Amino acid sequence: MAELLKGMKRTHMCGVLRSDDIGKEVVLMGWIQRRRNLGGLIFVDLRDREGLVQIIFDKDVSEEAFNKAENVRGEFVIAVKGEVKKRQDINTDLKTGEIEVFAKELKILSESEIPPIHINDEDEAGERIRLKYRYLDLRKPKMQKLLRTRSKIASTIRSFLDENGFLDLETPVLTKPAPEGARDYLVPSRVNPGKFYALPQSPQIFKQLLMVSGFDKYYQIVKCFRDEDLRADRQPEFTQVDIEMSFVDEEDVISINEKLVKRLFKEIKGIELDTPFMRMTYKEAMERYGSDKPDLRFGYQLKALNEVVKECGFGVFANTVKAGNDVKAININGGAEKFSKKGMKNLEKLAKTYGAKGLAWMKVTSDGIDSPISKFLSEEDTKAIIDKMESTVGDLILFVADKSSIVNTTLGALRIEIAKKLDIINEDEFKILWVTEFPLFEYDEDDGRYYAKHHPFTSPADDDIDIVESNPEKARAKAYDLVINGSEVGGGSIRIHDSSLQERMFRALGFTDEEAYEKFGYLIDAFKYGTPPHGGIAYGLDRLTMILTCTENIRDVIAFPKTQDARCLLTEAPSVADNTQLEELKIKLMEE
Amino acid sequence: MAELLKGMKRTHMCGVLRSDDIGKEVVLMGWIQRRRNLGGLIFVDLRDREGLVQIIFDKDVSEEAFNKAENVRGEFVIAVKGEVKKRQDINTDLKTGEIEVFAKELKILSESEIPPIHINDEDEAGERIRLKYRYLDLRKPKMQKLLRTRSKIASTIRSFLDENGFLDLETPVLTKPAPEGARDYLVPSRVNPGKFYALPQSPQIFKQLLMVSGFDKYYQIVKCFRDEDLRADRQPEFTQVDIEMSFVDEEDVISINEKLVKRLFKEIKGIELDTPFMRMTYKEAMERYGSDKPDLRFGYQLKALNEVVKECGFGVFANTVKAGNDVKAININGGAEKFSKKGMKNLEKLAKTYGAKGLAWMKVTSDGIDSPISKFLSEEDTKAIIDKMESTVGDLILFVADKSSIVNTTLGALRIEIAKKLDIINEDEFKILWVTEFPLFEYDEDDGRYYAKHHPFTSPADDDIDIVESNPEKARAKAYDLVINGSEVGGGSIRIHDSSLQERMFRALGFTDEEAYEKFGYLIDAFKYGTPPHGGIAYGLDRLTMILTCTENIRDVIAFPKTQDARCLLTEAPSVADNTQLEELKIKLMEE
Repeated sequence: MAELLKGMKRTHMCGVLRSDDIGKEVVLMGWIQRRRNLGGLIFVDLRDREGLVQIIFDKDVSEEAFNKAENVRGEFVIAVKGEVKKRQDINTDLKTGEIEVFAKELKILSESEIPPIHINDEDEAGERIRLKYRYLDLRKPKMQKLLRTRSKIASTIRSFLDENGFLDLETPVLTKPAPEGARDYLVPSRVNPGKFYALPQSPQIFKQLLMVSGFDKYYQIVKCFRDEDLRADRQPEFTQVDIEMSFVDEEDVISINEKLVKRLFKEIKGIELDTPFMRMTYKEAMERYGSDKPDLRFGYQLKALNEVVKECGFGVFANTVKAGNDVKAININGGAEKFSKKGMKNLEKLAKTYGAKGLAWMKVTSDGIDSPISKFLSEEDTKAIIDKMESTVGDLILFVADKSSIVNTTLGALRIEIAKKLDIINEDEFKILWVTEFPLFEYDEDDGRYYAKHHPFTSPADDDIDIVESNPEKARAKAYDLVINGSEVGGGSIRIHDSSLQERMFRALGFTDEEAYEKFGYLIDAFKYGTPPHGGIAYGLDRLTMILTCTENIRDVIAFPKTQDARCLLTEAPSVADNTQLEELKIKLMEE
Repeated sequence: MAELLKGMKRTHMCGVLRSDDIGKEVVLMGWIQRRRNLGGLIFVDLRDREGLVQIIFDKDVSEEAFNKAENVRGEFVIAVKGEVKKRQDINTDLKTGEIEVFAKELKILSESEIPPIHINDEDEAGERIRLKYRYLDLRKPKMQKLLRTRSKIASTIRSFLDENGFLDLETPVLTKPAPEGARDYLVPSRVNPGKFYALPQSPQIFKQLLMVSGFDKYYQIVKCFRDEDLRADRQPEFTQVDIEMSFVDEEDVISINEKLVKRLFKEIKGIELDTPFMRMTYKEAMERYGSDKPDLRFGYQLKALNEVVKECGFGVFANTVKAGNDVKAININGGAEKFSKKGMKNLEKLAKTYGAKGLAWMKVTSDGIDSPISKFLSEEDTKAIIDKMESTVGDLILFVADKSSIVNTTLGALRIEIAKKLDIINEDEFKILWVTEFPLFEYDEDDGRYYAKHHPFTSPADDDIDIVESNPEKARAKAYDLVINGSEVGGGSIRIHDSSLQERMFRALGFTDEEAYEKFGYLIDAFKYGTPPHGGIAYGLDRLTMILTCTENIRDVIAFPKTQDARCLLTEAPSVADNTQLEELKIKLMEE
């Protein structure tokens, strides 16, 4: 190395040279983006983290360098010493486009075979190839930018929280299973055979214990783990920005977090957000948008038609209302012409995946109403519907009649699918809101019991403390989600800090006191020795980075992500283990 | 909560009130350190993260508050509204000692049972109790301070590295086993039954791949894992400050890291370090201090006596030299009177644990030489030894005669033990040095093969590249350790960046090309597509925090540490797993 770089100490990054540097002798190091021979000269575009610069090899400047340059190709790593000169044919596409460097010396630091993917943003290699050769994929300017932005997001968050008195404290990775969470990753213990650690799904209990310990304000940017079947936007390990505060109520947590998000948008996107952010209760979000993470960048709001259709001629509607269920619709502005018969079939198919039995529709055209249900409806009924939906010529109305939850979920999903399909979403807009007053519990039909909607440590609303056991489905939580453009970026709550209320909560979840103590005994114990009121929030850093960089694919904001079957195509993890090691761990594989 | 804290918004932290605040109405929240009734008043010391403040409950100010205060005890959590007044009997032990707060309102936020440990630095609870009730132990001012300092160390490191263009990039936790490292923790994969992830011992290969990816400068403060039998200063999970740079040689890495360490000492301890730091080769460190992490705060240097004793009358010495081995000694200034017969026996016992066959000694007293070997030595021999050792009256000389490695290790260990025993180490002093030119390999007698001293990616010294295979034991590495006060705080190297040299290295380690490819194929492949020269360093954050806080017990600088048998006494992790989950993972426990 010392030998290799002898006399060659890098003076500048390639991408930062400007016309101010004209006349300087520089040493640059980087990868060759391309090489061309032209008019007796060799032109090399040299690339580093900061960008590209044009190097010229001219026999009249250095024959030795010129001759060496004849042998370099794309992705060779070289060091060049040369002089910065004014470029004749200014290239406005390049930030360094006003200058070029005439090479006096060239060292080849590392050669390259022809890479299996193109190192540019236009590369169209499939994702599997990109992940296998991740170290090449990450050389692309887009990927460099995404991960630099991610790094900057993390450092912006840290600076803000440091300034505001939050302590960066670490919690264990080898820890205890989370009984009420998703599926844990387990780690067999060699020293304690037959026993297992779990990787944390979140540092939830530890951060609460840090509040019990008196640290007052805590944060951590930390890996968390869930062994769930992966969806497109999930990874087995993900990064959480975990925040907790003592002696606070919901307003305190929301207020400091609005400042944090404001800072992030300012630093990362140069956007000045207005605070306070909008708020919407869970109930309103579900009723108007059919989702607890409503995307407010477009309309298509859900409207209840119960009053309008309860006595109409279309039996399905009228009977639904009579049975105590809901008829709701969304109005797709200008949608009448956008969906053919086949398009409508596809929408209906989609609706059925959300449990709806069907999808009724009505097109308002200049020739009148076009709808399979219009024959059942009187002119007054039709007019009432159109009035309620505020539809005008060209619009498409989509109806779902069913149980309230199915109606909301189905129409909520349709409005998003259609907005995407019709490309009406302004990608440069950010619609931010807090969704509040979440239900404390949700009922699981399969298990025949209630689960905590957030987690079992979430405090009920003050007004609902008395109904935690008697009327759990009505109990609201002191929980809040931060939603940006239809994505849940963060979520948190005020926690229970009283051991007797915590015990009632466990009972409402169906645990005997013994079971609760077995699972959460150390938290119950901790609450006996003076616990401050506390609450917090956690952001998904992957998700937050996607939002702030307008990226659709979660794998593009993670340096070394896993596939949907939880494999790393680069290292081929997971892999077969050594028998010796399994013996040391006192475990064996089950026969297939 | 909203209810609970109604009208009580904290205005100040307890520990920050000063005489400037006199006259203000404040709202404080915290834990009761103690309560006394005195002269018709109730005195409460209220504690939060920032310190203690004295609250006075006076019936004349508020009878209601006074009556409530009759019921509070230690560790109750309360909120107090009151007025800051000048204190009559100034308490110079407290930072808030010039003021006190007269309470107008009191809310009890949480009660406390009598805690099992005392919440003060004088508490003498055993470590097992402290770990079980960690949330109480962490309330102690000492523990609060240690973890706050740790947080500040991390943020100082981050600021420095951010300023210097390093990107904070995350590497996977669920990854591939490290074939040449310590024992890995394994994580069974449910989605890929029969296969396992490993938790990383360090992000070594990934950080090198990030350099191959062109990120140029990387850092990460990251958890790493080793399933080794724990020593007093080891934890199964530990935190590493991981740094890597491209286009650098050893001097570049050392130089930026000296700036980092200088910044840390300045920010954390207010100490201005001189740079460059001292350097010492591995060879010199071993010869003079018997250790590759020499503690330079005291002398007792090892001196070779081969020339002096090679023909002396003491056969053990003379024969050792003739056999090509070493006789060395250390001089313990003023040690003659400090070790009784029994003390000398203990030193010999210790010496034997390092493989020495015995420990010869010589006391230089005002009555002449006192030594079991003096009868074998002529007066000239004795004088020559004393001259060489520069011993004077009152000194103790300790000799070991054996193979060079045993001599060095034994005397190196003795010098430290004795320095501690005689309490001659100045705890306020920091002796920092780089140890350089480590051997590239070390030979493992049991396995009958060479292992990489650092790791298999460490570059040989330029002059030693040719002898990697032919004379491995002589090959030196471009490796460097940062040693502070006898503790290895960081270590790193320039890496191999050339795939053919990397392949030679694997061959020298005894792998066939096929084996090497199976274990490290993705790194070998990566090196084929243009790899920058690169190198880096990793610090142990736990160790670094111990040094910067002068703490002996590693568990005191970790919020939730594990015991030496890798258990968490608070959560009782690891624990027995659910059979259902083991079935999902397709593993079962071996019968005992």
